[in-house]
Amino acid sequence: MRKTTLSDIAKYVNVSKTTVSMVLNNKNINVSDETRKKILEASKELKYIPNSVARSLSTNKSYTIGFIVPDIENPFFSEMAKAIETESEKCGYSMILCNTLNRGEREYEYIKLLISRLVDGVVIVPSGESNEALELLSANDVPFVVADRKVESNEKYNGVFCDNNKGIRLGVEYLMNKKVGNIAFVGGLIQGVDTRLGYFEEISLELNILDKDLIEEEEFSMGGGIRATERIMNKNKDLKAIFYSSDIMAIGGMKYLIRNGYKIPKDINILGYDNIGFSSFIEPELTTVAQPIYKMGEEAFKLLLKSINNEHSPVETIILEPYLVDRETVK
Amino acid sequence: MRKTTLSDIAKYVNVSKTTVSMVLNNKNINVSDETRKKILEASKELKYIPNSVARSLSTNKSYTIGFIVPDIENPFFSEMAKAIETESEKCGYSMILCNTLNRGEREYEYIKLLISRLVDGVVIVPSGESNEALELLSANDVPFVVADRKVESNEKYNGVFCDNNKGIRLGVEYLMNKKVGNIAFVGGLIQGVDTRLGYFEEISLELNILDKDLIEEEEFSMGGGIRATERIMNKNKDLKAIFYSSDIMAIGGMKYLIRNGYKIPKDINILGYDNIGFSSFIEPELTTVAQPIYKMGEEAFKLLLKSINNEHSPVETIILEPYLVDRETVK
Repeated sequence: MRKTTLSDIAKYVNVSKTTVSMVLNNKNINVSDETRKKILEASKELKYIPNSVARSLSTNKSYTIGFIVPDIENPFFSEMAKAIETESEKCGYSMILCNTLNRGEREYEYIKLLISRLVDGVVIVPSGESNEALELLSANDVPFVVADRKVESNEKYNGVFCDNNKGIRLGVEYLMNKKVGNIAFVGGLIQGVDTRLGYFEEISLELNILDKDLIEEEEFSMGGGIRATERIMNKNKDLKAIFYSSDIMAIGGMKYLIRNGYKIPKDINILGYDNIGFSSFIEPELTTVAQPIYKMGEEAFKLLLKSINNEHSPVETIILEPYLVDRETVK
Repeated sequence: MRKTTLSDIAKYVNVSKTTVSMVLNNKNINVSDETRKKILEASKELKYIPNSVARSLSTNKSYTIGFIVPDIENPFFSEMAKAIETESEKCGYSMILCNTLNRGEREYEYIKLLISRLVDGVVIVPSGESNEALELLSANDVPFVVADRKVESNEKYNGVFCDNNKGIRLGVEYLMNKKVGNIAFVGGLIQGVDTRLGYFEEISLELNILDKDLIEEEEFSMGGGIRATERIMNKNKDLKAIFYSSDIMAIGGMKYLIRNGYKIPKDINILGYDNIGFSSFIEPELTTVAQPIYKMGEEAFKLLLKSINNEHSPVETIILEPYLVDRETVK
């Protein structure tokens, strides 16, 4: 079988190819309603797919956006993807998802792909390896919004972030108020200017509770949470709380602790970050610093749409507020 | 800023646009190595992106595939996506992910989008609402592979599936051997010819243990698992086991049971299906019928690549074997 063409429809309805093209592209043309109807029906029947690439070369719109994420297996990002998708669908946009596995060169390749495929815009959670991908988007004049992770020269780009400084402060103060004693921190292996680990160090220094020996860095995954927790526990410090910079790390860490005979929160308090759906399904349920994940996706799409619809719209940065969700892992 | 064009590079290097085009498209042309080098450097410096759409219209290759999934928030699908992505990357392909939210009309729209954007092929987990999307792919002569969920007239299409009949039989027999007593079953809300619910009914009838009152259907999500479990438990049957047709439903169900004071597996045995990563992170760890998720993604990509590279390759169906993973939720 081969792809249905305008000629096939023209033959089927017995009109000229130009008439078919004019009707399908909603151009003004002097044609009876009956013929118009026949052409539309025939295009459906013959399963005609407009070559929207060719079309978008002339109309300059594809009604498609790309969403570039570091790791789609992390529920934080799949939840955000759902948000962007739901919001974009409301406005007649489709969303294409690309997974960079946190690697700069994949990010760059996907952006080349998306640009050459003529998406109208891109929401990107940067891998953090470099700004090259963002520069590529800029250089090609593709509207885009940076989400979740700040980058250097952040003010140059549209961005939607959650206030990490405030979130970490919320978490530390919450643990301090509970008088838990020594707090360990597990940061994510990520480069950038706005890391939760950086804020934790800053705030603990300020509060005079910083012990660098109790800080670990690992990848944002359950496996990363397990490895970091094992290293921390092997130091045999008098430890009363671990603050993880993501829920999936905390879930991994809890697994390690439970398997090694610790009771949570009796023996050790656990605090997560993100508030992904799974955090209330594990036992005990995870106390965590929540990010408004859906909101972040929604705002990112809205900002992108603004930028798509008006190329002169000023660069905007939206900062959302984190909040504490008190469940069962801090006593 | 605007997109860099061939003319920009031509001006920059001071050669004709045709020379630039020939060099960048690797055409044979009588040009000095020095000029060639200058052109390539300029294209990099000016961040030129070849219009690969136009290019693929002539070469007929985009080295991009689409992966269409019903729900990217279900780790089963994000794990499969990772597999397809890893395998396709090895062969120089990029993967674009589209999420249908289990809705036929979205599926159809995405396929239209992917075809018009000229992907080389598509792996699809059908929403099950209809075969329209598959017919659209066929009619447009786009190579594709159906994964995970069989459809009607399955034999017409390339497919990679796990043996659901065998998987459900494995699970039922495992529970019977443990002499657990009455078994409830939670099926997914899904249409199709190869449902786990269908096989459960068939096998229980055969074994003379079918009690239709103990069968529930719900959406494949943690929330669906909670709702189905609540309905089942409210029937006050003498129930010793629940077999869920997906791990995320089982995780939801366990949550409901634990919150209502049941001990697992002492009071009730739980068996899942899929073996997603999370199943060994929850407490107690989930006993489940495993599907070789990575393998399924890998085989789907390999089959797609075969079909992309040889349009006359015969239609193939690959059936993978499920196996039981014995953890802690069945005593």
